[in-house]
Amino acid sequence: MYYELIVQTEKREQFINITAGLNGLLGDSGTEEGTCTVFVSHTTTGVTVNEDADPAVMDDLLRFLKRMVPLQGGYSHREGNSDAHIKASLIGSSLHLIVRKGILDLGTWQGIFLGEFDGPRTRTVKLWID
Amino acid sequence: MYYELIVQTEKREQFINITAGLNGLLGDSGTEEGTCTVFVSHTTTGVTVNEDADPAVMDDLLRFLKRMVPLQGGYSHREGNSDAHIKASLIGSSLHLIVRKGILDLGTWQGIFLGEFDGPRTRTVKLWID
Amino acid sequence: MYYELIVQTEKREQFINITAGLNGLLGDSGTEEGTCTVFVSHTTTGVTVNEDADPAVMDDLLRFLKRMVPLQGGYSHREGNSDAHIKASLIGSSLHLIVRKGILDLGTWQGIFLGEFDGPRTRTVKLWID
Repeated sequence: MYYELIVQTEKREQFINITAGLNGLLGDSGTEEGTCTVFVSHTTTGVTVNEDADPAVMDDLLRFLKRMVPLQGGYSHREGNSDAHIKASLIGSSLHLIVRKGILDLGTWQGIFLGEFDGPRTRTVKLWID
Repeated sequence: MYYELIVQTEKREQFINITAGLNGLLGDSGTEEGTCTVFVSHTTTGVTVNEDADPAVMDDLLRFLKRMVPLQGGYSHREGNSDAHIKASLIGSSLHLIVRKGILDLGTWQGIFLGEFDGPRTRTVKLWID
Repeated sequence: MYYELIVQTEKREQFINITAGLNGLLGDSGTEEGTCTVFVSHTTTGVTVNEDADPAVMDDLLRFLKRMVPLQGGYSHREGNSDAHIKASLIGSSLHLIVRKGILDLGTWQGIFLGEFDGPRTRTVKLWID
């Protein structure tokens, strides 16, 4: 079963918690147990699992990425967003997650985050539920 | 089919080979062919595929991560383990693997490694076998 | 259904577009909808999703990785390719992708790239279609 989650980002770079959005689609599907694929269909975004408690964790990750992959880095790609493409491949575009009791089977502190690296834009997260 | 592998880590940071543990659970399940999802349900661990021959390879990877993501980095998160959260997102929390002949269908030199970045702790690896 | 894509790489380090190769195997399988697992069965390669339009994007990513993970880095592993193993774990070895209308359901600009980090060699990409 195929679903889409549309996410409006608000900054050039930010992590947005999409856990509730994904669980909402799982609820719509009526799936109790199985797996699902989460895929961001853009080349300047990523999707990752990390702490869904203290927002400072995702701030620290974002700041680390900005320092490691600078906006200006003598890149060849002329659109000026090579840093965003590099961050996308470091963080990754797909997750494969377990579903139990009708929701994502995550650890106590885990959430799912869309990484926006070249926004603000309207982004599509594709969800396939097995 | 859902299984868990419990792993007791022994250092703050280390890679632990979980290939045999995962293959043991596949054996218990009786699965001959298909796929499986490996998911670490913590925000300061990762799971990766790399060389299961010379242990120096994983030592080099760990040393690289420690240098790239220092323990002290002017982070905002107050628990003092932001480096571990960053390493978790760089390495990733989930793998989707092929199963053939009753075991993980890996290349000659490949093994599966849990990355502990804020241990020692008792860690849970979730396994869903399709 | 299990398929293999054999890729001959030509340099020590390069990204090779395997999107058409994967879609060809999907065509052979007759699959219209579902998911597939893409897995590189080597410890010095990776697989990633990024821009399939301007080749400068992948050039920038490769140059970034070379700078971040130098060939000579005081590594313990004696084969002289520790940098390649590290790049493999940063980029990742597996993807789980959605299939719709008989092909990979990618965004407008996305393609799938094999990352060769210790070539030239003959590489095997494993594909499991659900």
